[in-house]
Amino acid sequence: MNTSWLTIDPDSDFSIHNLPYGIFSVNGEAPRVGVAVGEWVMDLPALGRFGFFRGMGFHEGVFSTPTLNAFIGLGPATWHQVRAALQRLLAAEHQQSWAPYWPQFTHPRTQVTMHLPVKIGNYTDFYASEYHATNVGRLFRPDQPLMPNWKHLPVAYHGRASSIVVSGTDLHRPCGQLLPAGHDAPVFGPSQALDYELEIGAIVGKNTPLGQAVSTAEAADCLFGFVLFNDWSARDLQRWEYQPLGPFLGKNFGSSISPWVVPLEALRPFATAAPVQEPAVLPYLQRHEDFHFDVTLESFLTPAGSPTETRLSRSNWKYLYWDFAQMLAHHTVNGCNLCIGDVLASGTISGPEAGALGCLLEQTQGGRAPVQLPENQQRGYLQDGDCLTLRGHAQGPGYRVGFGQVTGRVLPARSH
Amino acid sequence: MNTSWLTIDPDSDFSIHNLPYGIFSVNGEAPRVGVAVGEWVMDLPALGRFGFFRGMGFHEGVFSTPTLNAFIGLGPATWHQVRAALQRLLAAEHQQSWAPYWPQFTHPRTQVTMHLPVKIGNYTDFYASEYHATNVGRLFRPDQPLMPNWKHLPVAYHGRASSIVVSGTDLHRPCGQLLPAGHDAPVFGPSQALDYELEIGAIVGKNTPLGQAVSTAEAADCLFGFVLFNDWSARDLQRWEYQPLGPFLGKNFGSSISPWVVPLEALRPFATAAPVQEPAVLPYLQRHEDFHFDVTLESFLTPAGSPTETRLSRSNWKYLYWDFAQMLAHHTVNGCNLCIGDVLASGTISGPEAGALGCLLEQTQGGRAPVQLPENQQRGYLQDGDCLTLRGHAQGPGYRVGFGQVTGRVLPARSH
Repeated sequence: MNTSWLTIDPDSDFSIHNLPYGIFSVNGEAPRVGVAVGEWVMDLPALGRFGFFRGMGFHEGVFSTPTLNAFIGLGPATWHQVRAALQRLLAAEHQQSWAPYWPQFTHPRTQVTMHLPVKIGNYTDFYASEYHATNVGRLFRPDQPLMPNWKHLPVAYHGRASSIVVSGTDLHRPCGQLLPAGHDAPVFGPSQALDYELEIGAIVGKNTPLGQAVSTAEAADCLFGFVLFNDWSARDLQRWEYQPLGPFLGKNFGSSISPWVVPLEALRPFATAAPVQEPAVLPYLQRHEDFHFDVTLESFLTPAGSPTETRLSRSNWKYLYWDFAQMLAHHTVNGCNLCIGDVLASGTISGPEAGALGCLLEQTQGGRAPVQLPENQQRGYLQDGDCLTLRGHAQGPGYRVGFGQVTGRVLPARSH
Repeated sequence: MNTSWLTIDPDSDFSIHNLPYGIFSVNGEAPRVGVAVGEWVMDLPALGRFGFFRGMGFHEGVFSTPTLNAFIGLGPATWHQVRAALQRLLAAEHQQSWAPYWPQFTHPRTQVTMHLPVKIGNYTDFYASEYHATNVGRLFRPDQPLMPNWKHLPVAYHGRASSIVVSGTDLHRPCGQLLPAGHDAPVFGPSQALDYELEIGAIVGKNTPLGQAVSTAEAADCLFGFVLFNDWSARDLQRWEYQPLGPFLGKNFGSSISPWVVPLEALRPFATAAPVQEPAVLPYLQRHEDFHFDVTLESFLTPAGSPTETRLSRSNWKYLYWDFAQMLAHHTVNGCNLCIGDVLASGTISGPEAGALGCLLEQTQGGRAPVQLPENQQRGYLQDGDCLTLRGHAQGPGYRVGFGQVTGRVLPARSH
């Protein structure tokens, strides 16, 4: 379908080709499932009261819960069925049936409060951008930026699920152990190297049994959709703590996600060629279909006290080396089980150009080459009061499939 | 209280001084909360039908749920109140009131099925035994076994919550990428270096807010109790994958816990001096009270096809360098939030003696010095069909406070 009776700004992230799912509340009522379109949120429980979901073979109570997990659990055929029905509702030929009732099952997006879209049982962060891994590796190991395993498997670590928050949640600057230059014992204090990371997060769409691997061919049915993911990072805490078992307090003080989950189906038209993988990967990692999408990803900084937003980075999903089907196949090849609502994040997505670096660690060379901002300001790392925003969208002819944004402000460290 | 009308074998792990909580089912009925004592399980919903919990200020429905989370959420005062009431029930002077009804609110332990005791939202694995960290470090870095950070902070990484299973769950040998000696590219196949790890797991007892640290003085109120924890490990997968972000597929195919959660209060009489920490730790890690307990911890192997169990290791909780209050304070010092039911595991607890090594990696020097078993068998690492069991207990005068056991068998790898 290409024409709708609803007028949507061509620059809106939420065209009728998108229809992302989220959890919203309005007027102090209980959080429930909504779908964003243009400047509105379609209230699915309200649509249900029109009998909209009748005959679809599931209980519409799934839309009156405070997470998407129950709906996701209905599976890909139902995801498709609901999406197709919503697109029909918006199609030009159904204007007379639905337009008169529009105010009864929608809310202006400006009037709703968004919540975490899923109950996240487990969160895994990958390291899937070759540009990022090379740039970061070069800072620490100039002669061997990529570890020997990097091109053989999508490197990942388990992150902290409990501290994933929805866009708009401000976070205190974390305290912890820091090793000042030239010292051999750590001191305690607020991080002096607070960074962000520009990532995509995949929302797992299926419970898989313990002991059973998921192939790259089965991946599509296991991925419900995608969000923007800001993996806030305290580089100084991380540097001191991470050997030999990986990042911990440098990451788990908080990660932020965008509230609207863009369905995999909405991204399909933007599939694009993946980079050639050389050396060839092992059979279980071989690609089955295109899982790279042409999605522009940008980060923006609004410095403390300033009204002006500056773009820090403009990157693209397609710059990933490993795709989400490969990440999923690798994650489960040893039998590890996945759960509905789990998040698999890509790791920082950097591109080949200087303007496409997805974190300050890379962009400022570890703080040594600060970013210049308006009003004679500069930043090596984030300062208190700074607001960091990620945005992303795919561009179709005259419309967008976008992610909205994930934003968060840095609050001062708490005293101990 | 010291005398009970109930006869309990002095070698039973489940004396009246213990009273651990678990989730059991019997006769195909719904799983619910029970307390182990001697050879019995006290059925708390059944006790509730006698009015046992009346006037305690909470809804006894918390005992009719399939996890301990709701009960744990009532807080330390209620944990103590319920425990004290159960001990009074078992006290000699209350025999006439309760003994006649015993069959109506208990089940023989042999007749119940045990389930995962808590819904685990997040799982963190520490690396808190100096003996273990030194032994393992020496295998990889003979000149610097302990990293510079090790005595300044309790090193940890996030593990996988979804694949934690209850004792008795058998696990398939994991497959994954292995780098054969002398090769520079990995091959795919079943792990050839499957190991266990002898650990203690703490069950978090409180939801803490994001952004707020928990001090070592507050730790006791945040720790509900403890279980045995077998952190199954595929050393070959781990060795190839773990740089630079830590263990992933080498661990997340499964971890096993014992079904009975021993309350912190039951362990208090066994508190013992902690090792001196030198260099001194930063103030936020300073100890407030004894959190080391004299608990014997043992591992046993029953080889495939054999009826004979061989003890592999006899270690002790008190050998930890970092205690659970320090782990908890460190985990939250950056503002990371904890949730009821989260598991903090100690990492392998090894001791100073050769017989006190808590995993095969240490005990066999990475497989080079196999363990000798009866019937001319030997093991570098675990073979298919091997059954691994952990047990642990504190010894009082004439009674024990024990953990029961966690056991699991290695199933063959699944074909891909």
